[in-house]
Amino acid sequence: MTDSTQRRAARIIERLDTLFEIGRDAGTNRPGLGEGEQRAHELVAGWMREAGLDVTVDGAGNLLGRAPGADPAAAEVWTGSHLDTPPDGGRFDGALGVVAALDVTEAIRASGGARCTIAVVAFRLEEGPRFGRGVFGSRALFGELEPDEADLVDADGVTLGQAFAALGLGEMLPSGPVLDRPPACFVEAHIEQGPTLAARDSPLGLVTSIAGMAGIELVFTGRRGHAGTVPMALRSDALAAAAGFVRRVYDGARALPGVVATVGRMDVLPGATNTIPGRVELFADLRAPDAERLEALIGAATSAAGTAAADASCAVELLPRWRYEPVQMHPEPAGALRRAIAAAGVEVVELPSGAGHDAAILATAGVPSAMLFVRSDAGGVSHAPEESTGADAVALGVEVLEAAIRELAG
Amino acid sequence: MTDSTQRRAARIIERLDTLFEIGRDAGTNRPGLGEGEQRAHELVAGWMREAGLDVTVDGAGNLLGRAPGADPAAAEVWTGSHLDTPPDGGRFDGALGVVAALDVTEAIRASGGARCTIAVVAFRLEEGPRFGRGVFGSRALFGELEPDEADLVDADGVTLGQAFAALGLGEMLPSGPVLDRPPACFVEAHIEQGPTLAARDSPLGLVTSIAGMAGIELVFTGRRGHAGTVPMALRSDALAAAAGFVRRVYDGARALPGVVATVGRMDVLPGATNTIPGRVELFADLRAPDAERLEALIGAATSAAGTAAADASCAVELLPRWRYEPVQMHPEPAGALRRAIAAAGVEVVELPSGAGHDAAILATAGVPSAMLFVRSDAGGVSHAPEESTGADAVALGVEVLEAAIRELAG
Repeated sequence: MTDSTQRRAARIIERLDTLFEIGRDAGTNRPGLGEGEQRAHELVAGWMREAGLDVTVDGAGNLLGRAPGADPAAAEVWTGSHLDTPPDGGRFDGALGVVAALDVTEAIRASGGARCTIAVVAFRLEEGPRFGRGVFGSRALFGELEPDEADLVDADGVTLGQAFAALGLGEMLPSGPVLDRPPACFVEAHIEQGPTLAARDSPLGLVTSIAGMAGIELVFTGRRGHAGTVPMALRSDALAAAAGFVRRVYDGARALPGVVATVGRMDVLPGATNTIPGRVELFADLRAPDAERLEALIGAATSAAGTAAADASCAVELLPRWRYEPVQMHPEPAGALRRAIAAAGVEVVELPSGAGHDAAILATAGVPSAMLFVRSDAGGVSHAPEESTGADAVALGVEVLEAAIRELAG
Repeated sequence: MTDSTQRRAARIIERLDTLFEIGRDAGTNRPGLGEGEQRAHELVAGWMREAGLDVTVDGAGNLLGRAPGADPAAAEVWTGSHLDTPPDGGRFDGALGVVAALDVTEAIRASGGARCTIAVVAFRLEEGPRFGRGVFGSRALFGELEPDEADLVDADGVTLGQAFAALGLGEMLPSGPVLDRPPACFVEAHIEQGPTLAARDSPLGLVTSIAGMAGIELVFTGRRGHAGTVPMALRSDALAAAAGFVRRVYDGARALPGVVATVGRMDVLPGATNTIPGRVELFADLRAPDAERLEALIGAATSAAGTAAADASCAVELLPRWRYEPVQMHPEPAGALRRAIAAAGVEVVELPSGAGHDAAILATAGVPSAMLFVRSDAGGVSHAPEESTGADAVALGVEVLEAAIRELAG
């Protein structure tokens, strides 16, 4: 790396370290529409102003920093990601895409700017854990918030509508599209969050598609009883049902190549050591690379729930919380990334994204979108404090992103 | 029932209703060594004083109300139970045994008293859920608190030692036996908490033995990861391991007649919908009618844990929290109960207790002990707000208890 490239990567990593300290516990905790995310937005807004960008906050609370282009009539080129995190998250997921986009846009503006306006964007509430549904800011662009969106409740009993209002973003959620004029394209840089690039010893990856995914809440209902006095054969143990579901849905996922199923949250009630559980609430996160396998996986989960409940003499209710169809990346911005990767002398590794991203929402809404993955070290661990990426990959990533944005912005 | 018997049962049920309102939510919540249990102890102490009993609190916080006997040299006859409850418990478990004992002792005193002193006792912290270990007050009588007892922690991070001190019971837990002189015998009346008496349409049961039981905390450790990016085959999902354990330990219990296994508490961490669980903590409650089957069940659980962890590429740690051997009831106080049941014209139904009780601790320590079960209606549901017993069974229970205590106290 040249000295200037090293300094560039060092500044980006320093900024990621600064963001990491906001909401720091074991990892960082900046749930979307919370105080930590808000502080991160304010910090980045300050960096945007220092870089000479025009800063605005849209009707959904998304942060935008613009470097105006020579041709005001030309559609904008957008690049960015998000600043919220899952519980005890790492320093790269989301933040890297925003900080790298800012660095790139600052550099292009400093060297005279481009034909199109370039906008750095930090979307609100990308991560799902807080309210059981994510990609809030990007969906709001296109008026895709659900009718129940304001009533979603977090673990502390705060509704999404209350969290939104508490930040001064408005008493009501936006009822229509927040976006006046769609951008010409969107490019999101992001840590891979998986082991593929590390295994191939490649610093960068070009995303081909983003997985389809469904989130389903399941409630198993049995009958509470004393742990010592109810014979095994007479029990309706909601945890026996839930455990059977976990096994069956995981078996179902293993039978479908390329799909994954995860039960990340499970609440066992009443939660007393000597009481047979009468109720278990859990959340199944289902993902597949194409619509056919997503449908098959949802079918397998539905069937697993019914069989597991019946086996344990329990009832089950399935509450679908979200569903996003698989989406392909667009050849135009993806082509610009491909050319930039090749020009940097790096192998072009194509790979699908198993994780969801704001880019999937923009792509589905018709904005030509692409994603650049930066290698995930530490075995691809993500959504955890160990999440890491070497300075070499960061430096290459920001150079490639700059070259692609320069090409797309003309 | 005669009018006076009806009034007697009505007063007992009214007192149980009053106690039920302390810590009332869905059910009642009076965790041991907590504020609710303390208020219940103070309320019952007041009733004891109204009944003319001598009230004391021993070094472990157990409440005693004595009707002095004619012969001060004679060993005391004890009867009672406990006033704490599991989360959202009912109105009979524990409280019935204390309130009935008080009614009986008040009646014997009013009619001139007995040869032996009769003591009504309310033991502290009988239920296990708060600190993962119960029968605190009865174990303390005999110096059987464990060296780590003060350091046990509840869900709010409060230690048992802090809870004890906060009630003004002392800065340190008692280090030796709290009891100076063992009672001649102990009789505990209790709701059955199972369906046997209701199925036989019998109001009362004579307990033959109390089940042996073991409590084991298990910690499954896997590797956190993003729900979308780690292939099923490469996961170390701690919930997959825990679910496998639940299935295997329940299968193991079904293979041993008369034993039960319950996983009542399970914490899935970090608990985010889109993160593969890296850690699951759960509690296995294992019970068996004799030592041989208890040993076999613990072996089955240990083997289930190892196999389930290995199947999911996880590690597991087993932390034994408590173990009580099965114990037989004593022929002398049990004989008094048997004669009293027969004299009341009721069939003598003998049955084992699957639940643990303070009576098991006293029996193991050498105090001749017996238990009278009162029918559990509502299908034998217990540790739940629906827990109930009809006024007819309560009335018969208190009459039988009085006759037995009169015989034992001479």
